[in-house]
Amino acid sequence: MRRAWAAGLDMGGTNIRCAAVSASGDVLLMHRGPSHASREAGAVAENIASQLNLLLEAAKRRGLGSPRAIGIAVPGPLDLRSGTVMAAPHVAAWRGYPLKRKLEAILGRKVVLENDANAWALGEFWRGAARGCREVVLLTLGTGVGGGLIVGGKLVHGRSGMAGELGHITVEPAGPLCDCGAHGCLEAYASASGIRGLVEERLGVARGAALPESLLDEGGDFSVRRMCAEARRGDPLARETFAIAGRYLGIAIASFLNIFNPELVVIGGGVAGAIPYMRKTMLAEVRARAFSAVAAQARIVRAALGPQGGVVGAAYAGLHPEQRPRARG
Amino acid sequence: MRRAWAAGLDMGGTNIRCAAVSASGDVLLMHRGPSHASREAGAVAENIASQLNLLLEAAKRRGLGSPRAIGIAVPGPLDLRSGTVMAAPHVAAWRGYPLKRKLEAILGRKVVLENDANAWALGEFWRGAARGCREVVLLTLGTGVGGGLIVGGKLVHGRSGMAGELGHITVEPAGPLCDCGAHGCLEAYASASGIRGLVEERLGVARGAALPESLLDEGGDFSVRRMCAEARRGDPLARETFAIAGRYLGIAIASFLNIFNPELVVIGGGVAGAIPYMRKTMLAEVRARAFSAVAAQARIVRAALGPQGGVVGAAYAGLHPEQRPRARG
Repeated sequence: MRRAWAAGLDMGGTNIRCAAVSASGDVLLMHRGPSHASREAGAVAENIASQLNLLLEAAKRRGLGSPRAIGIAVPGPLDLRSGTVMAAPHVAAWRGYPLKRKLEAILGRKVVLENDANAWALGEFWRGAARGCREVVLLTLGTGVGGGLIVGGKLVHGRSGMAGELGHITVEPAGPLCDCGAHGCLEAYASASGIRGLVEERLGVARGAALPESLLDEGGDFSVRRMCAEARRGDPLARETFAIAGRYLGIAIASFLNIFNPELVVIGGGVAGAIPYMRKTMLAEVRARAFSAVAAQARIVRAALGPQGGVVGAAYAGLHPEQRPRARG
Repeated sequence: MRRAWAAGLDMGGTNIRCAAVSASGDVLLMHRGPSHASREAGAVAENIASQLNLLLEAAKRRGLGSPRAIGIAVPGPLDLRSGTVMAAPHVAAWRGYPLKRKLEAILGRKVVLENDANAWALGEFWRGAARGCREVVLLTLGTGVGGGLIVGGKLVHGRSGMAGELGHITVEPAGPLCDCGAHGCLEAYASASGIRGLVEERLGVARGAALPESLLDEGGDFSVRRMCAEARRGDPLARETFAIAGRYLGIAIASFLNIFNPELVVIGGGVAGAIPYMRKTMLAEVRARAFSAVAAQARIVRAALGPQGGVVGAAYAGLHPEQRPRARG
């Protein structure tokens, strides 16, 4: 008997990752290709289908047969009931774009869409740090801050699939402008772009201005990893900036603890590497603001899966259609 | 055939309300008695059992027979898995008090505990403003701010029943001291005690100092209802204070919308009477901070049940033991 598996695909700004994932969450086969996110709306969808077809062909060559389901993780808020991408940070052409319908037309079979941060959360829940837990808050600190909520062992979708925008809880009403247009969201402090903004503010330079060499990667872009190296050697700018980011991360986590009484808070994403420099202020705010009985029940841990989380979670979404908001009308 | 019903009891600081509630949520019989909340721990529990027995006897006289279940709503954080009251605002003697075990010993039958704000939320979900909805955020603005979350048609309990403390989301990190000991919780702005604090701050008087006659009820206590009357006739202190409370209520609601993507936000409690004076600033913050696609899907409405909500919800909790956190070990 052939092994049951699902295809999971994670659409990033630069790359598409996709994988054949077994029914128990093992990655059987991985494929990577370009996202071509700047193309027009239909061409971006066609490229997703092409990358997926490359995976399906490779799976066939390996004797895996056809997948039982296909799950697709895409950035930005989705309307899962209609399969529409409301807006995608990296794909300018997708505004109210009926991605599910388009992909199903090209592929000739059903696909399941999921928000990428939610897919990542599902991956950590299925096979990562939150395995076996039923009440979990998952935060991914990357270019932005995304998240996912597991309540009663299921991902929270909300009315139409847009729940879990944990980066857009207000933590300081008069705080810095967030990429979403509001002021003082968690994302404006604890994401790579938020931390860059804090550095600019402390240096008194304009938004997008050149930053010290020591904070840039080889390509000349702002790098949280480089800033961690600076913090490690005691640089006050790096240390104080991470302390501020940690403070607001702690304020948000305290609110999530009081709202959800979770057993676990999982923190992932590239900026999670800076947790050693954010931990002290983060934990001070959690202690000061969360009910002690609630805080005592929750562990705060790092994510376990890395970049594979998204594809594994997308496959999980594909395999569990019963956990999704019901289609409209 | 006798009608199936449940007993629901709501333990307040002054009064106990209890009712015989039919399996479809109709109140068949209501009883009210004193809470005697200042007595010692066991005596407060014995009084609850006595009030409940008065209801059960009255039900028998009416030919209702025995209840199928008993649900008890009590203030403060509970550990539902062990049936322990962690701390109760009005019952000083209950700290880590095993209320479920004590009541079951006195009554000789099973009871189900629920937090009072969660019970109120269940009442509104079963028979009030949130009837028929599956994704709801419920806020009760009273002496404090409580709340309840309905996700996928079920109340969110969290790990041990302490979820839903929506009044203790931070909305202004350096804001006024909240009764919980943290600074700038929603409760420090949008509860009766929070609004009193805002008035004191604007008048530059000490916490607990005498306030203008116009804001006091017949007993000399601060009254949000009297302040509403002042706002109605254009008093700037009342108007500006409600505008501030509304602003922070709106900041919190925007965060809840981004976190949950609900179809409905229900606002109840005594302070909800001030919504006409909070609405403008509240909605301005919601518009500025919530994702527009998410805000467009959510209605913000007033609660429908009034003080009966708690007993009806407590009865619902009793009738639906399958929706509760599993008992420990």
